Amino acid sequence: MQADKLRNEVCTANLELARRGLVTYTWGNVSGLDRERGIVAIKPSGVSYDRLTPETMVLLNLEGDVIEGTLNPSSDTPTHMALYRARPDIGGVAHTHSTYATAFAQACTPIPCLGTTHADHFHGGIPVTRRMTEEEVTDNYEANTGRVILETLDNQSSIDMPAILVANHGPFSWGKDCQAAVKNSVVLESVALMAFLTRNLSPEQGAIPRYLLDRHFGRKHGPTAYYGQPEA
Amino acid sequence: MQADKLRNEVCTANLELARRGLVTYTWGNVSGLDRERGIVAIKPSGVSYDRLTPETMVLLNLEGDVIEGTLNPSSDTPTHMALYRARPDIGGVAHTHSTYATAFAQACTPIPCLGTTHADHFHGGIPVTRRMTEEEVTDNYEANTGRVILETLDNQSSIDMPAILVANHGPFSWGKDCQAAVKNSVVLESVALMAFLTRNLSPEQGAIPRYLLDRHFGRKHGPTAYYGQPEA
Amino acid sequence: MQADKLRNEVCTANLELARRGLVTYTWGNVSGLDRERGIVAIKPSGVSYDRLTPETMVLLNLEGDVIEGTLNPSSDTPTHMALYRARPDIGGVAHTHSTYATAFAQACTPIPCLGTTHADHFHGGIPVTRRMTEEEVTDNYEANTGRVILETLDNQSSIDMPAILVANHGPFSWGKDCQAAVKNSVVLESVALMAFLTRNLSPEQGAIPRYLLDRHFGRKHGPTAYYGQPEA
Amino acid sequence: MQADKLRNEVCTANLELARRGLVTYTWGNVSGLDRERGIVAIKPSGVSYDRLTPETMVLLNLEGDVIEGTLNPSSDTPTHMALYRARPDIGGVAHTHSTYATAFAQACTPIPCLGTTHADHFHGGIPVTRRMTEEEVTDNYEANTGRVILETLDNQSSIDMPAILVANHGPFSWGKDCQAAVKNSVVLESVALMAFLTRNLSPEQGAIPRYLLDRHFGRKHGPTAYYGQPEA
Repeated sequence: MQADKLRNEVCTANLELARRGLVTYTWGNVSGLDRERGIVAIKPSGVSYDRLTPETMVLLNLEGDVIEGTLNPSSDTPTHMALYRARPDIGGVAHTHSTYATAFAQACTPIPCLGTTHADHFHGGIPVTRRMTEEEVTDNYEANTGRVILETLDNQSSIDMPAILVANHGPFSWGKDCQAAVKNSVVLESVALMAFLTRNLSPEQGAIPRYLLDRHFGRKHGPTAYYGQPEA
Repeated sequence: MQADKLRNEVCTANLELARRGLVTYTWGNVSGLDRERGIVAIKPSGVSYDRLTPETMVLLNLEGDVIEGTLNPSSDTPTHMALYRARPDIGGVAHTHSTYATAFAQACTPIPCLGTTHADHFHGGIPVTRRMTEEEVTDNYEANTGRVILETLDNQSSIDMPAILVANHGPFSWGKDCQAAVKNSVVLESVALMAFLTRNLSPEQGAIPRYLLDRHFGRKHGPTAYYGQPEA
Repeated sequence: MQADKLRNEVCTANLELARRGLVTYTWGNVSGLDRERGIVAIKPSGVSYDRLTPETMVLLNLEGDVIEGTLNPSSDTPTHMALYRARPDIGGVAHTHSTYATAFAQACTPIPCLGTTHADHFHGGIPVTRRMTEEEVTDNYEANTGRVILETLDNQSSIDMPAILVANHGPFSWGKDCQAAVKNSVVLESVALMAFLTRNLSPEQGAIPRYLLDRHFGRKHGPTAYYGQPEA
Repeated sequence: MQADKLRNEVCTANLELARRGLVTYTWGNVSGLDRERGIVAIKPSGVSYDRLTPETMVLLNLEGDVIEGTLNPSSDTPTHMALYRARPDIGGVAHTHSTYATAFAQACTPIPCLGTTHADHFHGGIPVTRRMTEEEVTDNYEANTGRVILETLDNQSSIDMPAILVANHGPFSWGKDCQAAVKNSVVLESVALMAFLTRNLSPEQGAIPRYLLDRHFGRKHGPTAYYGQPEA
């Protein structure tokens, strides 16, 4: 039953990616973790979004062994697993090839924090990983992608920075659950688009001042938050 | 009853922002003022557009005290209030993070009047505020946002200039009522997009001549207007 | 009855502008001419597209006098009339503020013929008018707009060049009837978008060779045409 | 019956082009080949997509003679035929004027492989043909277009490189059947958009390393493929 709930949530989150226009054909994937039971549900590999149902989700343990489901899991599964194992506060991961975030990733360029839309959701510029070496790409490519992401994040918290750009590839995002991971993908794409345009208008534009970044991030996150409604 | 009408109008105007593609998730907010009774209705904070109903609108007096409604009002409420108190001809205010207008705001660049689409609706370039100081951001941030908007508008009339860009943040617009404020947000986004493209094609392009600006603005506003139909 | 048919066609053509995403609010207008009877039908001024019906179309003679209809005709009516009077092969005129064509008009930059999509529909670069003088703008502005368009077209045929950009303003297009005029507006916007992107990729890109222009234009127009099906 | 199946598939593939937003009016065309029987089905020339039915598809032999159907075949038919005759592994061809791919074609600029989205589908940069000579354009233009495409592809396999840009014109793509050809058109447009943006952000950005290209292309193609599900 718990597994059913997880499958439902992860299926819905994958469909949300498609509904928000972030994916083409079978690109992209979302997973969710039930940390108590150590079970991850993830999109099956190469299945088109209009055929996704909760039953097609693949269940794995945190070592990446399939424990339920007849389909192959997303080929990016080892990247998701690396994030779940290293970061205890992550409960969902999303990966897309969304247009503007991918353009920044392809340009190997971080997205500087150029405005309050960005500051409301990311506590600083979105980092980009270094390029992966031939060795990292040839063997255990997807697991190594996870390692390079973690190396780049270093000691930044998963709350402060819930997304990253993998150089030459595209964005990954995460959150407390799979819905939060998807939301961070959507906001990232919007922030990337605005940053692209801002750089066109003003190529030397620097990041907003720290006090404005802190104010906006703090309006929505942590003990100083006053945006929204008190939780029911 | 009057309050019901105001709530309906403001709810519809908020939904119009979403319908026109100007908002993502819960971003943006619209308010409307019943100046006779001194009552403002505004979107509740952080509530998604598909859950908005007239009943969820929050009613406040012009000092910003909630007088009806159980939800928190938009966190930008003090900005709206500052505009209503200073400008007796404003009856509606809208705030969005619409893509192109926000890009100009992030670039801290005003939008010059480059064509008649702009001149039909704004009597000159759309101004951008100065950046706010650390003090202004740390205390009473949203009220200070209103003060900086008013400082930038200076003695330009609300009819001549019904929108502004807040530096590093995004656009605010206004009008005689909440529908007019939303319309000005939509037109602003369209004008910002065209200005972005025009600057790409011709980086040194200057504003159109004063006589063309006056002709077009005057076709639609004031005693010389001859666009549209006589009011019923 | 003939008038009913004309009203129907012109109403449908105006709605086609909206359906194709070329207009915002009440912007844009299409007219059609019954040349035998000397009657023009045109969109009423400032009426939103979702309220247009054949009955709301305004009928005028070629001098611009309203002969049927209770609404004011489009404020751009004198521009349409100037085109009909000067060019006997024009039976429809469309005017929009479509995004990319307007950006070129605002940049006072003609659209060079950079590819076969353009060459299939326009026999050379889309011209841009000179800027209008203060005198031309202050008195009889809309009629003078028509005069400046005709001055710019000079002796180019209406078939070879069915569109123009009015400097600082936006595009006008025409054709044998109002449907053809709308189609030319849609194609012009598409061609303008591609030209914008091409110039970004290759700023010094010149026009395609004359022989390619002639081949493609000749595939679709005139005695050498072999595109499409024989007329029934 | 075989012919009926081919007609159905080719009609559906043409409609897919329209559904994916890659065509305007009657632009674009898809064909499919039944290689056993040597029969090609192709879109009729100049017929709008909302009137396409399987019955309107035109059947031809590989010499380009119509063998069934009352409508004229696409004017680009000789280009399709040249590809089918020269490449025994091609079973479908698609041609569009999709926006970003056409912009690269107009700029006579190949699309470098700037990321893994590209590498997943194309085994290297998308080539652009040389410009065609006056002679090639004046006589047998469409057949010569096919010859220049083949000259540019040279000894690259149809699997490694399933698309090309014709200089000053637009993209052609192909695949084992007409659905694969359409999919390659859609992916090409997406890859072209991302490349356009990447070049804007980082004009000197070079192609990704060979080992990353091979890894990603090999995940989806050939004996090393591990993306997706085993064929049923």
